[in-house]
Amino acid sequence: MGGVGWEPPTKPGAKPTEPGTATDFGPLFSPRTVAVAGASATKQGFGNRFLQAYRTAGWTDGTLFAIHPTADRIDGVPAVPSVADIPGGVDYLLVTVPAAQAPALVAGTAGAARFVQVVSGGFGETGAGGADRERELLDALRSAKTRLLGPNCLGTYAPRGRQVFTFGQSLEPGPVSVLSQSGGLAGDITTAGGRRGIRFARVVSLGNGIDVAPGELLEWLVDDPETEVVGAYLEGPRDGARLVRALRRAAGRKPVVLLPGGLSRQGAEAVASHTGSLAGDDRLWDAIAAGTGAIRVSTLEDFLGVLRMLQVYAHRPAPAGSDVLVVGPGGGASVLATDACDRAGLTLAPIVAATRQALRENGFGAGTSVSNPVEVPIGPASAPDLAARVLGPVLAGQPYPDVLLHVNVQSYFSYGTGDLTPLVDLLGRLPELAGPARVTVAARNLDTAPGDAADRIGAAAVAAGVPLFGTLDAAATAIAAVKRWTRSQATEGRPA
Amino acid sequence: MGGVGWEPPTKPGAKPTEPGTATDFGPLFSPRTVAVAGASATKQGFGNRFLQAYRTAGWTDGTLFAIHPTADRIDGVPAVPSVADIPGGVDYLLVTVPAAQAPALVAGTAGAARFVQVVSGGFGETGAGGADRERELLDALRSAKTRLLGPNCLGTYAPRGRQVFTFGQSLEPGPVSVLSQSGGLAGDITTAGGRRGIRFARVVSLGNGIDVAPGELLEWLVDDPETEVVGAYLEGPRDGARLVRALRRAAGRKPVVLLPGGLSRQGAEAVASHTGSLAGDDRLWDAIAAGTGAIRVSTLEDFLGVLRMLQVYAHRPAPAGSDVLVVGPGGGASVLATDACDRAGLTLAPIVAATRQALRENGFGAGTSVSNPVEVPIGPASAPDLAARVLGPVLAGQPYPDVLLHVNVQSYFSYGTGDLTPLVDLLGRLPELAGPARVTVAARNLDTAPGDAADRIGAAAVAAGVPLFGTLDAAATAIAAVKRWTRSQATEGRPA
Repeated sequence: MGGVGWEPPTKPGAKPTEPGTATDFGPLFSPRTVAVAGASATKQGFGNRFLQAYRTAGWTDGTLFAIHPTADRIDGVPAVPSVADIPGGVDYLLVTVPAAQAPALVAGTAGAARFVQVVSGGFGETGAGGADRERELLDALRSAKTRLLGPNCLGTYAPRGRQVFTFGQSLEPGPVSVLSQSGGLAGDITTAGGRRGIRFARVVSLGNGIDVAPGELLEWLVDDPETEVVGAYLEGPRDGARLVRALRRAAGRKPVVLLPGGLSRQGAEAVASHTGSLAGDDRLWDAIAAGTGAIRVSTLEDFLGVLRMLQVYAHRPAPAGSDVLVVGPGGGASVLATDACDRAGLTLAPIVAATRQALRENGFGAGTSVSNPVEVPIGPASAPDLAARVLGPVLAGQPYPDVLLHVNVQSYFSYGTGDLTPLVDLLGRLPELAGPARVTVAARNLDTAPGDAADRIGAAAVAAGVPLFGTLDAAATAIAAVKRWTRSQATEGRPA
Repeated sequence: MGGVGWEPPTKPGAKPTEPGTATDFGPLFSPRTVAVAGASATKQGFGNRFLQAYRTAGWTDGTLFAIHPTADRIDGVPAVPSVADIPGGVDYLLVTVPAAQAPALVAGTAGAARFVQVVSGGFGETGAGGADRERELLDALRSAKTRLLGPNCLGTYAPRGRQVFTFGQSLEPGPVSVLSQSGGLAGDITTAGGRRGIRFARVVSLGNGIDVAPGELLEWLVDDPETEVVGAYLEGPRDGARLVRALRRAAGRKPVVLLPGGLSRQGAEAVASHTGSLAGDDRLWDAIAAGTGAIRVSTLEDFLGVLRMLQVYAHRPAPAGSDVLVVGPGGGASVLATDACDRAGLTLAPIVAATRQALRENGFGAGTSVSNPVEVPIGPASAPDLAARVLGPVLAGQPYPDVLLHVNVQSYFSYGTGDLTPLVDLLGRLPELAGPARVTVAARNLDTAPGDAADRIGAAAVAAGVPLFGTLDAAATAIAAVKRWTRSQATEGRPA
């Protein structure tokens, strides 16, 4: 082993690798060879699922191995007793054996595995006995001088490198990288996030993070050319100071979205049982976000929504103001849209008088105010060119960096026949209609829409490359997040 | 006319009816006769849609009339020039004529219409010219001595009385009554709310509310035997003092959920153009809620979610504590569930030691903490009796008033075949499994679920009578709301 850029950690365990001895995580995300330890020769367990996932992702004999004490093949994959038996070793070893067997297995990887990811639970997160096993694992790691991810995690997902969590995941690559101190949520993020249109570069679940910890990995992702947007689900990272340094370095270069979990006293107890880490403090994370320009969110839904928003719009040049143009059906929905924007810190700058006049002459504004929000009857019966007739003159008269278009999905069923074609067509035309403005859609009442309406509307938005949200507040939060990023770029400058 | 309890307002307009001269709104919600003014003899307009909706709801000749200057019949419905031509007049006249024609039409209802609802817009909400027309409408109302709802609204919905907004609405009655200063949102509330399982008693859209205003109507709803839960979407009600008195009277008797719109300076401007009212102030509404026990929400989603929650659980006896038992898959989801509960003010009281021991012996807790949250692998591969094996001993060992069960909808696709049967079955069994505890489900990743999964899961929850939410925070907010109501009952007592 010992490829270029691969250095064993100087101080694995509680004291993470210091800057200057940086590990190249490239082979973790694009391994040439992969092995899975813990697949069973007789039944279908977690390890077998991983083997199947790798085969489905295109891994073949000679690059994919099973580690098993006795079997020659497992599920058709060549098996050997140890990675030391594989000529040249492996770049990535995934371990699903019971916790008690993990330390010996890790000790046997010396010089034969670049990265070991221990998926198995039963370590520091389970109390006294688990803490003992975690110390054994650390001792084994020190002797093996490999890098370890986990324990108590899910794996690594990187479509370009055919790294997969589980089968059925998309191999379509994208610019979003995520590190997660929860394996389960890493699975949520890739699957539910994928359905929202998020496409991923590198996703790592770190679990207890006894060796590789969030700060070190974030440091690497900031320089990673395949990563344009970073998200991090954190439960009291052990290398907090390094993480903050990495966030400072990311400022103005790459947007970073933080979802800290276990912030409440009660949540902290849940975290202790989850990853064995100390939990964070709510105000601490606000201070870190304020000091580094990171975008802090509180729910998984906002985490995914903001990542999707940044994937689409982080690199669209836009003025740094807080202005937003709100367009949609009038009345109470318009009032609530305005309130949601206000809660998110957005400003509805009134449209200029000439534009208002042009809209009135075009038939808009009888009985409603023609200002911002612009109230237009978008719905099942509206003319196909309605959005164009409104967005065109308004955006020409006064450039807005962001447009929030809101529609009521339920109206297509209550006041129409349930035919979603007008809405699907509108979504498809939006990027062209909005021109340089960043357009975001709030499809109200999406989650209670009949039949497969939510699926169809979601797919149409993904195909159009338009960020879609199920509520006004979620859309406003995402718009505010991309604006925060735009402002931080203006402030920090962008290094050449 | 002049039935028992029907009194004309002493001071229509800016100064609403005083207590002691209360109008009986019963005939508004259960009219014997209905007329629609504004349906066209030659084309299909808004008035024609109402006529069709009433016919679909079962109204026949002799009880349903069209008001038209020349036609004998419109869309098959007998037409007369004025309600004065209908022997005995009508209980309810719905007006969709252009704003300029409305004052004369209202003046002609003297002694011949108990309630007139002016759906048409073009009054105070549109600026100077509209304000003049609104004054004319008030003058006409004073001479006619009828009661007026609107203008600038949608109508009235009351399934028991076959009052309908639009066709296709359910005629299944329920205990939830809503007053809305937005017509459009009243439509949302009944359709999207209906899909969440909310069943309605009386829904009124009040629009500009120049005569009947929210406070007067709320006063009546507090005494209405068909109403068990009240919701109000408010945009700066004109009879604020009366509204607050009505909220005080409701305290401990009926839960009232308030969604004030137009709270931001920007939103206030949108409100002015919407209903012509002065907007409220955020802190003012917090103070009103604190002083009256009303439940204040900020989004339409929470409004509907809390109404559904109260419909199901407002009358389930429960201890008044803030305890909640959280059950679901472990790891990050469990941490986020705990944080969401904490944000909502809920407490996760640890389960008692004996129960913990029983669960461990039952196979739960290897590798995870067996406390609260209780972490169990609910998912596509879990045993059908898993929830029973967990909920049974925990709830027997220590009564919890509320159980939050969280599941990941996406897992049924990522780790299963997409077969939702285990989840649908679990939802159906929950009421029996939870016994006296109020069980609430957070189905994470619901709105990005493939195909018609959200629809199927939503329908299963409605059929089971279990409140279902798409996010952890929405579920926690609803649990906190029903707890607030339970506490206010304990404090205020319940009148005999």
